[in-house]
Amino acid sequence: MTNDEHRRTTWETATSVPLVVLSLVFIACYSVQVIDTELPGEAQIALGAVIALIWATFAADYLVRLGLAHDKGLYFRSTLLDLVSVLVPVFRPFLLLNRLRDIPFFRRRSGSSVRIRLLIHAALFVVLFVYSLALAVLAAERGAPGASILSFGDSIWWACVTMTTVGYGDMVPVTVLGRTLAVVLMFGGVAIVGVATATIVSYLTESIGRQRHDR
Amino acid sequence: MTNDEHRRTTWETATSVPLVVLSLVFIACYSVQVIDTELPGEAQIALGAVIALIWATFAADYLVRLGLAHDKGLYFRSTLLDLVSVLVPVFRPFLLLNRLRDIPFFRRRSGSSVRIRLLIHAALFVVLFVYSLALAVLAAERGAPGASILSFGDSIWWACVTMTTVGYGDMVPVTVLGRTLAVVLMFGGVAIVGVATATIVSYLTESIGRQRHDR
Amino acid sequence: MTNDEHRRTTWETATSVPLVVLSLVFIACYSVQVIDTELPGEAQIALGAVIALIWATFAADYLVRLGLAHDKGLYFRSTLLDLVSVLVPVFRPFLLLNRLRDIPFFRRRSGSSVRIRLLIHAALFVVLFVYSLALAVLAAERGAPGASILSFGDSIWWACVTMTTVGYGDMVPVTVLGRTLAVVLMFGGVAIVGVATATIVSYLTESIGRQRHDR
Amino acid sequence: MTNDEHRRTTWETATSVPLVVLSLVFIACYSVQVIDTELPGEAQIALGAVIALIWATFAADYLVRLGLAHDKGLYFRSTLLDLVSVLVPVFRPFLLLNRLRDIPFFRRRSGSSVRIRLLIHAALFVVLFVYSLALAVLAAERGAPGASILSFGDSIWWACVTMTTVGYGDMVPVTVLGRTLAVVLMFGGVAIVGVATATIVSYLTESIGRQRHDR
Repeated sequence: MTNDEHRRTTWETATSVPLVVLSLVFIACYSVQVIDTELPGEAQIALGAVIALIWATFAADYLVRLGLAHDKGLYFRSTLLDLVSVLVPVFRPFLLLNRLRDIPFFRRRSGSSVRIRLLIHAALFVVLFVYSLALAVLAAERGAPGASILSFGDSIWWACVTMTTVGYGDMVPVTVLGRTLAVVLMFGGVAIVGVATATIVSYLTESIGRQRHDR
Repeated sequence: MTNDEHRRTTWETATSVPLVVLSLVFIACYSVQVIDTELPGEAQIALGAVIALIWATFAADYLVRLGLAHDKGLYFRSTLLDLVSVLVPVFRPFLLLNRLRDIPFFRRRSGSSVRIRLLIHAALFVVLFVYSLALAVLAAERGAPGASILSFGDSIWWACVTMTTVGYGDMVPVTVLGRTLAVVLMFGGVAIVGVATATIVSYLTESIGRQRHDR
Repeated sequence: MTNDEHRRTTWETATSVPLVVLSLVFIACYSVQVIDTELPGEAQIALGAVIALIWATFAADYLVRLGLAHDKGLYFRSTLLDLVSVLVPVFRPFLLLNRLRDIPFFRRRSGSSVRIRLLIHAALFVVLFVYSLALAVLAAERGAPGASILSFGDSIWWACVTMTTVGYGDMVPVTVLGRTLAVVLMFGGVAIVGVATATIVSYLTESIGRQRHDR
Repeated sequence: MTNDEHRRTTWETATSVPLVVLSLVFIACYSVQVIDTELPGEAQIALGAVIALIWATFAADYLVRLGLAHDKGLYFRSTLLDLVSVLVPVFRPFLLLNRLRDIPFFRRRSGSSVRIRLLIHAALFVVLFVYSLALAVLAAERGAPGASILSFGDSIWWACVTMTTVGYGDMVPVTVLGRTLAVVLMFGGVAIVGVATATIVSYLTESIGRQRHDR
C-alpha cells in the first residue's frame, strides 16, 4: 500500500460515521421536501439550504478522495456509483449505502461469509431502492391528471408491489417520468429475485456438500 | 452432550406430539374466532379461554426449554423464531412448524437427502404462511370501507395469487395493516420461488454429475 | 434384468406408439366435448363412448403393466403419476407425456445431455399443462355469473398470463373450482420458472468451466 | 481452418460494420413506418423501398455466407436464428444482434469472462426484444376495437411491464396476433429472469470459492 493509499483509507475511516449521519439527515430533509407540500416558505428555504449544504459536503468528499487516490483513472471507474449518487437526485439516498462500506464495523465483517454480507447489502439496497424510487415517483405523479399514486403511503405500497413483480395494477404511474422510474424499479426487482435465489442455491449446495462429507 | 442438553432433548421429544396436537387445536380455534363473526357470546368466551390456555402452555414450554438449556444466550438466539411465534399473533400458526422439528419421525429423516427435507419444510411453510396471513389480512380488511377481501375464501385466493407473484389485482388490500401483511407475503413469495429454483438447480447439477460419472 | 422385467419392457415398447396415437385422439375428443357446447345429442353420445373406451384401454394397460412388474409395490410408487393421469380427468392429457417415455426414439436420447431432455420434457409439460388446465377452467367458469373466461381462446390466453406469473387481471376465475385449478397452474408456473433458471445456471456453469479448462 | 472457412471469416469481418450500420438504418425506417401513421404517400413509398433494399442486402449476405461455408448443413443449422431474423418481420431488429457478433471488437472480447459477454448479450437482447415486440404489438392492436395500447409510448411501457412479469393490467392486448406476441414476450421475460439469476448464482459461487481459497 502506497502512502497515498494509506492517507485515503485513513480519510475514509475518519469521515465514515459523520457522513452516514449526514446521509440520514439528507434523506430526512429530502423526504420532508417531497412529501410535505404545505410547508411554509421559510421552512422550505431552510430545508433547501440544508440539502444544498450536505450535497456540497458529499461533492467535496468525493473530490478529496479522488485527489488522494494514486491511480485516478482506476479510482474514477471503481467509484462510478458514488459519482452517480452525488449527481442524480433519485439516487442520492444511495449515498448512505456507499458510505456504510467505509465504517470499520462493516469492514471488519469482510472475513465472514460472503453470503451474509450479500444479504445485508441486498436488504439495505431493497429498503433504500424502494424508498428513493417511491419518493421520486410520488414527486413525478402527484400533479398529473388521472394519477393514482397520490400519497407517500400509496407510493411505498406501489413500489413494493412492483419490485416483487406482483403488479396488482390498483395503482399505476401515468407520466413518462413515473413510468421510466417504474421500469428501473422492475429491473431492480428482477435483480433482487435473482440475488435471493442465488443465495438459496449457494446455501443449499453447501448444505448438501457438507452432509455428504460428514457421512 | 452435557447432562442438561440430554434432559432438554428428552423434554422436547416427550412434549413434541402433544404440542403439535395443541398447535392444531390452537389453529382451529384461532381460525373459528377470525372467520365466524356471528358466534354467540358464550362460544366466543370459551374460544378465547382455550386460545389463552394453549398460548400459556406454549409460553411455559419455551421457558422450560430455556431453563434446561446449558448456554442460555445461544439457545435464545437459535430459537428466536419460536419466541416470535409465541409473541406475535400472526405468526402463531408457525408454532406448528416449530414443534414438528421435535417429533422423532422428522428427526429420523435427517439422514436422508437435504433436498427432500427442504421441500417438505418449504411446502409446510407455504401452507401455514398462506393460511395465517390470509386469516390476518381478512381480520384487517373485513371492516374497511372499499375493501375487496370479504370472506375467508377470497382471502385464501388473494394470498395464493400474491405469494406466487401473479397479482391479478381483482382483490387488493386497502388498509395499512393489510398492506403491511401483504408485503410480508410478497417477500415470502420471492423466497419460495427462490427455494423452488434452488432445489431444481441442485437436482439438475446432481443428475448431470451422476450421468457423467456413469459414462 | 429378470424375465418379468424383460416382458414388461417388450410390452411397453410395443404399445408405446399406439398409445400415443390414442392419447392424441383422446385429447382431441375431450377438447371437442368441452369446447363445442352446441354438439347434437348423437355426436355427444359418440364422443362420450370414444372417450370412455380410450379411458378403459389406458386403465387396462396400467393393470397389465402392474401385473407384469416384478416388484409391484415399487412399480406402484414409481408410476403414481400414471395412475393420477388415468383417474383425474384434468390430468388425462398427461397420459400423452407418460406414454412418450416409452417410445424407443425418446429412450435412445437418454445418452445425450440431461439438459436437452429436461428442456424437451419441460416444453411438452408446459404445452400440455396450459392446454389441459385451460380446458378444465373453461368448463368450470363458462356458466358462472360474472365470469370473464368465456371462450377457449380467452382460456388459453388467461392460462399463459397466469403460468408466466404476469397476471394482468383482465380475466380472472370466479368459481371455487376455477380458482383451485388456477392455484395449481400458478405453482406449476413457479416450477417452470425454476426449471428455466436451473437450465441456464447449469449451462453457464459448464461454459465457464470449459473456458477455464481450455486456457 | 480450411481455405473456405478462411474466406468466410474474412467476408464476415469485412462486412460486419457496414451491416450493423444497415441494421440501424433498417430499424429506424421500420420504426417510422409502424409508428408514424400520417406519413405522406411519397415518404411511405421511399421508406418501403429502403426497407426492401436493406432486406435484400441481408438476404444476399446470408446466401454468400452459406455459399462460402464448407459444411453447408452445419452452417444452416448453426445460423438458423439469422434465417429466422431475415424471414420473419417481427424478428428483423435481431439482425443487429446477429451482426454484432462479427465485429472484431466483440470477437476480441471472447477471451474475457463468459459472464460479462452473457450480460452484454442479454442486455442487448432485452432492448431489441422489447423494442421489436412493442412495435409489432402496436401494429397489431392500434386499429382493434377496445384496444388499450394506442401509442408507441404505451406499447414500450406495456412491453416492459410484461417482460419483467409485473403485469399491472392497465394495458392489455385484445387481438389474437397481439396476444400471441405477448405470450412470446412473457416466455422471453421468464428466460431473462433466468439469465439474471444464473449470472448472480455464478458470480456468488465464484466469490465464495475465491474467498475460501484465499484463507
